[in-house]
Amino acid sequence: MTPTHRQDASAFAPKALVFDVFGTVVDWRTSVAAAVRAFAVRHGLRLDPERFADAWRAGYLPAMQRVRSGELPWTKLDRLHRLILDQVLADFGVGGVPEPELAELNRAWRRLTPWPDAVPGLTRLRRGFTIAPLSNGNISLMIDLARFAGLPWDCILGAELVRHYKPDPEVYLGAAAFLDLAPAEVMMVAAHLGDLQAAKAVGLSTAFVARPLEYGPAGGADLEADRFVDLTASDFVDLAAQLGA
Amino acid sequence: MTPTHRQDASAFAPKALVFDVFGTVVDWRTSVAAAVRAFAVRHGLRLDPERFADAWRAGYLPAMQRVRSGELPWTKLDRLHRLILDQVLADFGVGGVPEPELAELNRAWRRLTPWPDAVPGLTRLRRGFTIAPLSNGNISLMIDLARFAGLPWDCILGAELVRHYKPDPEVYLGAAAFLDLAPAEVMMVAAHLGDLQAAKAVGLSTAFVARPLEYGPAGGADLEADRFVDLTASDFVDLAAQLGA
Repeated sequence: MTPTHRQDASAFAPKALVFDVFGTVVDWRTSVAAAVRAFAVRHGLRLDPERFADAWRAGYLPAMQRVRSGELPWTKLDRLHRLILDQVLADFGVGGVPEPELAELNRAWRRLTPWPDAVPGLTRLRRGFTIAPLSNGNISLMIDLARFAGLPWDCILGAELVRHYKPDPEVYLGAAAFLDLAPAEVMMVAAHLGDLQAAKAVGLSTAFVARPLEYGPAGGADLEADRFVDLTASDFVDLAAQLGA
Repeated sequence: MTPTHRQDASAFAPKALVFDVFGTVVDWRTSVAAAVRAFAVRHGLRLDPERFADAWRAGYLPAMQRVRSGELPWTKLDRLHRLILDQVLADFGVGGVPEPELAELNRAWRRLTPWPDAVPGLTRLRRGFTIAPLSNGNISLMIDLARFAGLPWDCILGAELVRHYKPDPEVYLGAAAFLDLAPAEVMMVAAHLGDLQAAKAVGLSTAFVARPLEYGPAGGADLEADRFVDLTASDFVDLAAQLGA
């Protein structure tokens, strides 16, 4: 456990920690690729599960942008995942799969494996802090995911509660408001610098935990903190240690 | 464990159970009276803690009505509790108590003892169902209360998420929407027939659990189910048994 930066953690006294989930808490790529692989085998399809998972995830930001721009009304992430899935299936030349099978495949996002340090780290952090997801995933998705992965949240916060997707400021400020805390008393934990930058811009504290394999061995993950980051930890257990939990 | 009614529970197949909290899950009166008693001793006050607790709770419905009517903008229950407290202190002739002591007394509503069956019953129900509070208490209050009482919720639902107080229909329908369930797939569990009537009116399933001592030995609690009730259980453990959890 060697943090890339070792700041003075005592300078930050958060009362609650809120977490990005996809990529930061759970390894979406491996899990979704495994679900796609099983789906392909079941239907006799020849496709590259990792490429399929990457294409599915690549539709994520553009789909949320359609909501942000007003092109779509507020739409839960489950539904956006499904819209993207339908397009990716077409792009991969897959057709004729019965609807219940597609609905089931879409639920792959509710069964994602946590990074190995996530549950022990959260369990330890929860002794000292209120902990909650602050994800773009909808509430029911987050409930199922917490059950699947054993994530010991105090409550489920996130985009759906304010009908804005991160990095809109409403999501971060809404979390502080629901927790009855000043923004600086809430620490956003994420593997994505853009998320932390948006959180910091409206006054939250920030912690960066790199997840170098989020996008697979070819890379693409944020590896180093930037100036929007108050604290850098090598994983959640290290974060708990730095925060004295 | 002898339920007062024994309906055919298999006729109801809820996927999630949502719970009234004050009175149904926790014994607010004993807990608040104990906090008031300690407060009175600390400040050398002569007052009847149970009467004080009853007066505090008696302000609850009128205070929410001020929000419902539009006289007050949306106001969290924590703040309403404090407005009522200030009035009750005046009515009991108490003055000159330092502000931090009053803020601390107001937090008595975050430290309420669960009825003896509540935690074992919820723990068992959680094996088969998503469980969440559906209270007029605000989110941060419910988080602290869940920690204090050891309530194993999957998430925190409630009035604050829709900025309406029960029995407004938005609260019940909002819960079903957040859970991605049809109203009938959500079962409202409460010791209060008015709550169940409002839930049933918008399509939720309903379960009644009597809490005869909610208002103390002098009575005042609902003791028998009425026609809005789908299921009656003697306590949460009996409810779990009837629902096959």
